[in-house]
Amino acid sequence: MAQCQTLLDETAPMRLSRFHLHTTKETPADAEIVSHRLMLRAGMLRKLAAGLYTWSPLGLRVLRKVERIVREEMDRAGAIEVSMPTIQPRELWEETGRWQKFGGQLLKIKDRKDAEYCYAPTAEEVITDFARSELSSYKQLPVNFYQVQTKFRDEIRPRFGVMRAREFLMKDAYSFHLTDADLVREYQNMHAAYTRIFTRLGLKFRAVQADSGAIGGDASQEFHVLADSGEDAIAFSTGSDYAANVEAAQAAAPDARPAAGEAMRKVDTPTQKTCEDVAALLGIALQRTVKSIAVMTGDAASGQQFVLALVRGDHAVNEIKLAKVAGLADYRLASEAEILEHLGSEPGFLGPVSTRKPVRVIADREVAAMADFVVGANEAGLHIAGVNWGRDLPEPDVVADIRNVVEGDRAQDGGELRLARGIEVGHVFQLGRKYAEAMRATVLDENGKATVMSMGCYGIGVSRIVAAAIEQNHDDAGILWPEPMAPWRVAVCVINPKNDAAVAAAAESLYAELNAAGHETVLDDRGLRAGAMFADIELIGIPHRVVVSERGLAAGTFEYRARGAGESENLDRAALLKKLART
Amino acid sequence: MAQCQTLLDETAPMRLSRFHLHTTKETPADAEIVSHRLMLRAGMLRKLAAGLYTWSPLGLRVLRKVERIVREEMDRAGAIEVSMPTIQPRELWEETGRWQKFGGQLLKIKDRKDAEYCYAPTAEEVITDFARSELSSYKQLPVNFYQVQTKFRDEIRPRFGVMRAREFLMKDAYSFHLTDADLVREYQNMHAAYTRIFTRLGLKFRAVQADSGAIGGDASQEFHVLADSGEDAIAFSTGSDYAANVEAAQAAAPDARPAAGEAMRKVDTPTQKTCEDVAALLGIALQRTVKSIAVMTGDAASGQQFVLALVRGDHAVNEIKLAKVAGLADYRLASEAEILEHLGSEPGFLGPVSTRKPVRVIADREVAAMADFVVGANEAGLHIAGVNWGRDLPEPDVVADIRNVVEGDRAQDGGELRLARGIEVGHVFQLGRKYAEAMRATVLDENGKATVMSMGCYGIGVSRIVAAAIEQNHDDAGILWPEPMAPWRVAVCVINPKNDAAVAAAAESLYAELNAAGHETVLDDRGLRAGAMFADIELIGIPHRVVVSERGLAAGTFEYRARGAGESENLDRAALLKKLART
Repeated sequence: MAQCQTLLDETAPMRLSRFHLHTTKETPADAEIVSHRLMLRAGMLRKLAAGLYTWSPLGLRVLRKVERIVREEMDRAGAIEVSMPTIQPRELWEETGRWQKFGGQLLKIKDRKDAEYCYAPTAEEVITDFARSELSSYKQLPVNFYQVQTKFRDEIRPRFGVMRAREFLMKDAYSFHLTDADLVREYQNMHAAYTRIFTRLGLKFRAVQADSGAIGGDASQEFHVLADSGEDAIAFSTGSDYAANVEAAQAAAPDARPAAGEAMRKVDTPTQKTCEDVAALLGIALQRTVKSIAVMTGDAASGQQFVLALVRGDHAVNEIKLAKVAGLADYRLASEAEILEHLGSEPGFLGPVSTRKPVRVIADREVAAMADFVVGANEAGLHIAGVNWGRDLPEPDVVADIRNVVEGDRAQDGGELRLARGIEVGHVFQLGRKYAEAMRATVLDENGKATVMSMGCYGIGVSRIVAAAIEQNHDDAGILWPEPMAPWRVAVCVINPKNDAAVAAAAESLYAELNAAGHETVLDDRGLRAGAMFADIELIGIPHRVVVSERGLAAGTFEYRARGAGESENLDRAALLKKLART
Repeated sequence: MAQCQTLLDETAPMRLSRFHLHTTKETPADAEIVSHRLMLRAGMLRKLAAGLYTWSPLGLRVLRKVERIVREEMDRAGAIEVSMPTIQPRELWEETGRWQKFGGQLLKIKDRKDAEYCYAPTAEEVITDFARSELSSYKQLPVNFYQVQTKFRDEIRPRFGVMRAREFLMKDAYSFHLTDADLVREYQNMHAAYTRIFTRLGLKFRAVQADSGAIGGDASQEFHVLADSGEDAIAFSTGSDYAANVEAAQAAAPDARPAAGEAMRKVDTPTQKTCEDVAALLGIALQRTVKSIAVMTGDAASGQQFVLALVRGDHAVNEIKLAKVAGLADYRLASEAEILEHLGSEPGFLGPVSTRKPVRVIADREVAAMADFVVGANEAGLHIAGVNWGRDLPEPDVVADIRNVVEGDRAQDGGELRLARGIEVGHVFQLGRKYAEAMRATVLDENGKATVMSMGCYGIGVSRIVAAAIEQNHDDAGILWPEPMAPWRVAVCVINPKNDAAVAAAAESLYAELNAAGHETVLDDRGLRAGAMFADIELIGIPHRVVVSERGLAAGTFEYRARGAGESENLDRAALLKKLART
């Protein structure tokens, strides 16, 4: 029981008259995004210097709620908490070569004896050093150490408040394994823990494949909070959990190519250089046109090659995918002179038919599956319609997925692809033996043989989550916290408490009753005018507002409104408790 | 209910087979004090670099328990938690002049743009900057902001583990007030909160006056954990809460001087230069002798003065107290030439009677109250006995308390003074307007007049407390945690769990039952031999050990032993639960 008491203290009820709430109406000039603006207006943060923020009592309440859920789920997943110093010696970073390689974000420090250190931007070196000292036998594995700790990255342009601060709070975890199979198991365990964390936080999110899977599809995934303002574009499927960065996302392969139906013919397109213009002129769907992108590969020594990459008129070439086609790792766009030399035409009317010299043709899968399509004629002012593979030009040299997915694409799982923007708040990563090898972190295996451990690492941007949640959940009046992140669940607002003892007493009684019933409740007993009080409570995003007034008291009701709802309801005490219990 | 669940997760039960416990028998060579040795042997810490330590899962459990109690009592006292950056800009430190004055402990840092920062060793500047932005009206006062945050002090010689680490965890609080009376009230409130914190932690401690009270007796107090190895000597009274650093401690004034009883006479002390030797030769109590210390004050410009400071033979001059006597702020010891010039004697036989030149005499209160005492004769090989003030030499020019207290002194409160050694773990301080004045932190008072705020600051060395607790509570086998700091309250040790399913099942059942009954219990299911297992559990200081074995199971009993007890008891389940509930 003493333990329960303890917790109730921590998430204790609070009278705003004894709290330090400091909201402001002004919109700070240098706050570029809504979460930064609202955090400053709500008084959650105060800037100390570029990329450095003090968390006010209100801001810290929210941060601690995130921290607590992260910690609980890490514990539940079997990870064990440690605490490493923020200041790390250069020697360890030299062992992995990252003292040089990490770049300008690494804040380097000299102590009074001129010994060199850095402020931790991450802790692979320190935890691997810890592990090589603490772990000597396979019997101690698997093990997953985590910490919730201040990190520093010396951003060249810190901005967006805590979204891209220099000093920030991060949960970083590192797991150690004898075998890669064990690593994969723990990676999946962490993936599941992260899913629980973001679900419990009440956020809309997606686990996103960070690359197209060169190290194996599951070697690295990012967790994104979905928000229109997110800096990353992601694609996800309606048919499964599949999600990926737009650059890495893949749609389902197209259906088989239909039979040719039209004869090939030249069409006049005097000024129409884009697929859109050509389709409009011809009165056909943009999907019937094909875009030709001329690129060069190779170099003077090994011989250069002219390549035409074809994507459908409504699609865009994906440079990363194109570069993965054999021979195209170092491609560049062709010059006008090179285009003229190989195709005999100026840009705008290019196509794979009737080229001046033989060219290598790489067709996107969609293009390879088209019939009766339109391409440039390699003559100014002309296109060719009714083009068909095999009949009018050879089959493509390469068929590959070289385009960006678009909204509505069929997904590989049978669902449909949707595009969204996301804010990266978590990352799970199979490091393998890179760090353990460099730092000789070995254990003895079952046969007594020293074996380099396999590692995973798992990060969550704890302070960033607070900003991301606001980007996802706000309106004109302020923040709309998901309940698990709200500083308090319920606000009891008292009208005129100093002049009306009956109202004040009723509010106190309700406040006590709601807290006793497990609804974390704040009492706004500051004696503000109703308008100013309601504006504050909306701005700071309290999910449920209950007003205690003289009029309500006379009628035996309280005025209840959910944050974001347009209307209030007058409820008696029993109905109010029922409402709060249900929502 | 969900909230209770949450907490139970945090202080969750644990199976050692799934924990990372890494004890060692070796005593680390560079660990000079017992807490450092035991923390390393118990595997609570691992050194990363000089003064930088990683807290292992075991160490962190203890640290978090301290942190939690500190936070709960700060909250209870009405302080409000914030979180400031660890990296602070030089500009703020320039405002108070401390960028230069703080000295070598301030870790200075340049970022990638060559802007200058320091790693927070304390946060007066940052919180005062926060306050001058956030606080504008007396209505927002009083307010007390606190944080639990990593600090860095670039100790020139870091040692003793976390007792004097460079990076450490500190709770720092700062209060803001309109009036000094409000400051005094909050200072007393914090004093009470600190008393609750150290009481709840189960530590023997004293609140100690840090100086002799030049700014008022209560302007600053240190909280010390008592331990023989403590670096500070403190005196405390048996009659009240009075305690002070030995340098600052005051005894009660002596009783009135008795009447003279002896005639003054020279006595031969051919080689006896110390009071001890003289007392032994004469066969008298050391308390009958008086020590004369020759010092010089003033300078060549204003004129120098020769002064004799007199303390009883069994007492030692307190340099800080002596310097507080009018005119002695800059005193220095007199040279042999100066002594010869004024007293006509070599050191060893000095005294205030028959000086060659007139000298100023400053007598400790005890000396001024003596009769028939012995002093040096200012002649080699001679002392004078039966000396009496007024009769044989003039009354002292100054009578003052200029000595260190000693064990058994009468205290001002009527009790007796005891000496002890302490480890400073907390500090409460009335800063007044020093920082707020320098940084122009003002609020409008009731008349709309800008008024500089009065400040208090209140620190607790959270990580240091862990080491201090061990210095106070250990034996040859290891740590003896006070229960509130123990990583777990009870350890259930299973003998041979892998080969005896009945024993394993009984242990699991007991483990579940003890946790359900609110006793935080760890299950040692590692399958170690009994001796090694018991040694670990003793080393890491678990207060209660319960052994589940085949023999006990047959008899229907468990073997119980309290940490530090010599004997075990065999108790049945009911008796065991009763025992644990009672202790």
